[in-house]
Amino acid sequence: MEPALIKHLGQEFGDYLQELVSLVRKPSISATGVGIGSCASFLAERMRAYGIETTAHELPDGHPVILGNIRGRGKDRMLLIYGHYDVQPPEPLDKWEDDPFSGRVVEDRVMGRGSADSKGNLMAYLSAIRMLSETGGLPISLKLLFEGEEEIGSPHLAQFIDSHSRELKADAVLCCDGEMDPSGRPMISLGMKGLVYVELRCRKLNKDVHSSRAPLLPSAPWRLVKALNELTDAEGRVAIPGWRQGILEPGELDLELLRGIPFDAERMKKDFGVSELLHRKVGLEALRDFLYEPTCNIAGLTAGYQGEGSKTVLPAEARAKVDMRLVYDQSAERCLRLLKQHLKATGFADIEVEVLGKIDPSHTPVDAPIARAAADAAEAVYGQKPVIYPKHHASGPDYLFTGNLGLHSVWTGCAPEGGRMHAPNEFIGVDDYRLGILYACELINRFSAM
Amino acid sequence: MEPALIKHLGQEFGDYLQELVSLVRKPSISATGVGIGSCASFLAERMRAYGIETTAHELPDGHPVILGNIRGRGKDRMLLIYGHYDVQPPEPLDKWEDDPFSGRVVEDRVMGRGSADSKGNLMAYLSAIRMLSETGGLPISLKLLFEGEEEIGSPHLAQFIDSHSRELKADAVLCCDGEMDPSGRPMISLGMKGLVYVELRCRKLNKDVHSSRAPLLPSAPWRLVKALNELTDAEGRVAIPGWRQGILEPGELDLELLRGIPFDAERMKKDFGVSELLHRKVGLEALRDFLYEPTCNIAGLTAGYQGEGSKTVLPAEARAKVDMRLVYDQSAERCLRLLKQHLKATGFADIEVEVLGKIDPSHTPVDAPIARAAADAAEAVYGQKPVIYPKHHASGPDYLFTGNLGLHSVWTGCAPEGGRMHAPNEFIGVDDYRLGILYACELINRFSAM
Repeated sequence: MEPALIKHLGQEFGDYLQELVSLVRKPSISATGVGIGSCASFLAERMRAYGIETTAHELPDGHPVILGNIRGRGKDRMLLIYGHYDVQPPEPLDKWEDDPFSGRVVEDRVMGRGSADSKGNLMAYLSAIRMLSETGGLPISLKLLFEGEEEIGSPHLAQFIDSHSRELKADAVLCCDGEMDPSGRPMISLGMKGLVYVELRCRKLNKDVHSSRAPLLPSAPWRLVKALNELTDAEGRVAIPGWRQGILEPGELDLELLRGIPFDAERMKKDFGVSELLHRKVGLEALRDFLYEPTCNIAGLTAGYQGEGSKTVLPAEARAKVDMRLVYDQSAERCLRLLKQHLKATGFADIEVEVLGKIDPSHTPVDAPIARAAADAAEAVYGQKPVIYPKHHASGPDYLFTGNLGLHSVWTGCAPEGGRMHAPNEFIGVDDYRLGILYACELINRFSAM
Repeated sequence: MEPALIKHLGQEFGDYLQELVSLVRKPSISATGVGIGSCASFLAERMRAYGIETTAHELPDGHPVILGNIRGRGKDRMLLIYGHYDVQPPEPLDKWEDDPFSGRVVEDRVMGRGSADSKGNLMAYLSAIRMLSETGGLPISLKLLFEGEEEIGSPHLAQFIDSHSRELKADAVLCCDGEMDPSGRPMISLGMKGLVYVELRCRKLNKDVHSSRAPLLPSAPWRLVKALNELTDAEGRVAIPGWRQGILEPGELDLELLRGIPFDAERMKKDFGVSELLHRKVGLEALRDFLYEPTCNIAGLTAGYQGEGSKTVLPAEARAKVDMRLVYDQSAERCLRLLKQHLKATGFADIEVEVLGKIDPSHTPVDAPIARAAADAAEAVYGQKPVIYPKHHASGPDYLFTGNLGLHSVWTGCAPEGGRMHAPNEFIGVDDYRLGILYACELINRFSAM
């Protein structure tokens, strides 16, 4: 770290912290829309105050996307920084020790919904931009893309990126949304799983009927159970023909990363009360399944009578929510087509498929410049090697950057492990935020030097 | 019909009608217990006033059972009359045009919850007893068994009957609970289906978890789907080994009855919006399936997220309500054992089976004296042949009479078809009730002469 930067941060940190507190105090709940417009305006206004050329794009049916531009010395390099200003709903409210949007600093923690996920990350990058601008200038040009719908699945991001691809032209993407690894080390993710999320529906009668009619009337729940049964084998693996086509096995570099991940199978078993992981996998094999196995999960089942005791009813309708995680390089569109074909081929053309989500998997190689810059910066700032996940275990819009924009992309951030993201009493440590600013500075500097 | 009886009814009917109105005005909701005690006392008091020796048996955890005895001329014959004084809950209240317990007579109908199901039937028999007593005396002795839990599945009836089998000794059973056939003719049922009602439960985790963990953690919904799948074949027929053992095919007399039933398949298809009945059955074949085919019905499914849109969750638990109708002469106890064995044999010992209901099927031959007496009486009173169902399509406690007491038993009654039983604005026509009294008199007389 440059001593000048550290000195500057020492002088200015009180102000940077206040900016974070102000942002946390602006509710921005994407699920309900509460405060979104006001928070977006506030954020754009602050960005302009920091010298960033900023446009807030209003979407007809969505929350504003904020685009920022700021020039740096290195004219030929451009880094696109993605983040989100929306937050999860604060419910259950009675579990909070204070107003969820208080932004109060209590025992060296900034408390509040969104402090960890992800306003701390977002403000760390904005503070880093201020710091670099004030201490010799930005080494490269930056573009900022802050959306307000990440917590509801980024429904308009694909369309926005496609229609603004020119403005978003860059050399790499840094997604400032992440937390520390459970091991306490910094965490970097180089790709995400894809997802096909569908609701399977079967409707056979115009109303529920007394089950004494079961010998004569078709059963929607049975049709659904039989259709679901065709989707997986006895071991629970996807049984749709062609499903695994396109999957790329992890390469040697990825396997090396896997071996370096301090995966704690014992903790997972204890957390969820199981004596063994699925298929009795342990160690590296379990971790590999975790990150590289496609899944077909039943997220919900609903039909007929679900109350106490018994009711003899033949339900008119049955529904299942099914999420199928995809791994690199499966195609969500193709998998959805295979699913529909399979239902038809197995005699279940009567099962209606409503598509609720469609995300492609993504991939960035560990030796990509942005990946190396992030890893080097993390080690320099935190004093320990980051845990690098060749793939994140969850799904996200990363494919829009790696696929639609064709760029390398990494996900990393400074939120604390155990920061109660999506839960009551969310927080980010004051020191987490301070280190996060340094991490952002260092990452920008290192990338500019690649 | 004896002219003396008809004349007597003409004189006394106003009083008999008033007694029914008074009974309807006493709420007796077994599901909630509202009014049960008061209605039982009222009924017992009225029975004593009619000259019936009456005992109200309080049950420790249940609603009172009322036993009545009245001597007749024929010392050697004894008819046991079963009925119920409890009613369904009146909800939804806003759909009633009047107080559900008004008992008001509107346009020649006695309005009110329980008027059709089954206080009209019950009071018709009590009025018949009064009439016969006052016009030459009862031809045979009668025992009356009125329970207050029929609408909640008669949970204490088996135990009561077993512990009072001596007091209930009789030559046959008349169950005064029934309505006219959809064709408008009187209806008589000679047996009921059995039932095994279970809740199948699977729990794999101590809490719901983000579905990104699906490659490593077991899925309760999938286990449940795979277990359910083992219970039926592709056609939806029960696939549990040994399940059909014990089933007696309908005899020639029963088949003859089937051919006489005006089964309206077109109406059923229209009512439930289907273009064909199951397995494309039509006519007599469909009717035979309706009454003689065992079923395995999924009455309810529940797991995970069931709201709008998507949530990526791996549910900790999944549950299914399954009702399996049994036909004569399957044993509920044996079928339950087969179900449990089958789950184990197919590798699903981890599926928990909670038993929510267990009813044996029952059978009374059409040439039994009580069946002949009912048929002859119906024809004499209503002027048309009754529709005789060798089996009712639903399940009920009839096996307690045919099995535990070893008696012939018929189910019949005077409630109107379309009397809105279990629904708002339930009613029995004043004339339905008048004919019901005559039907009861005639049935008792005919049985005494057999």
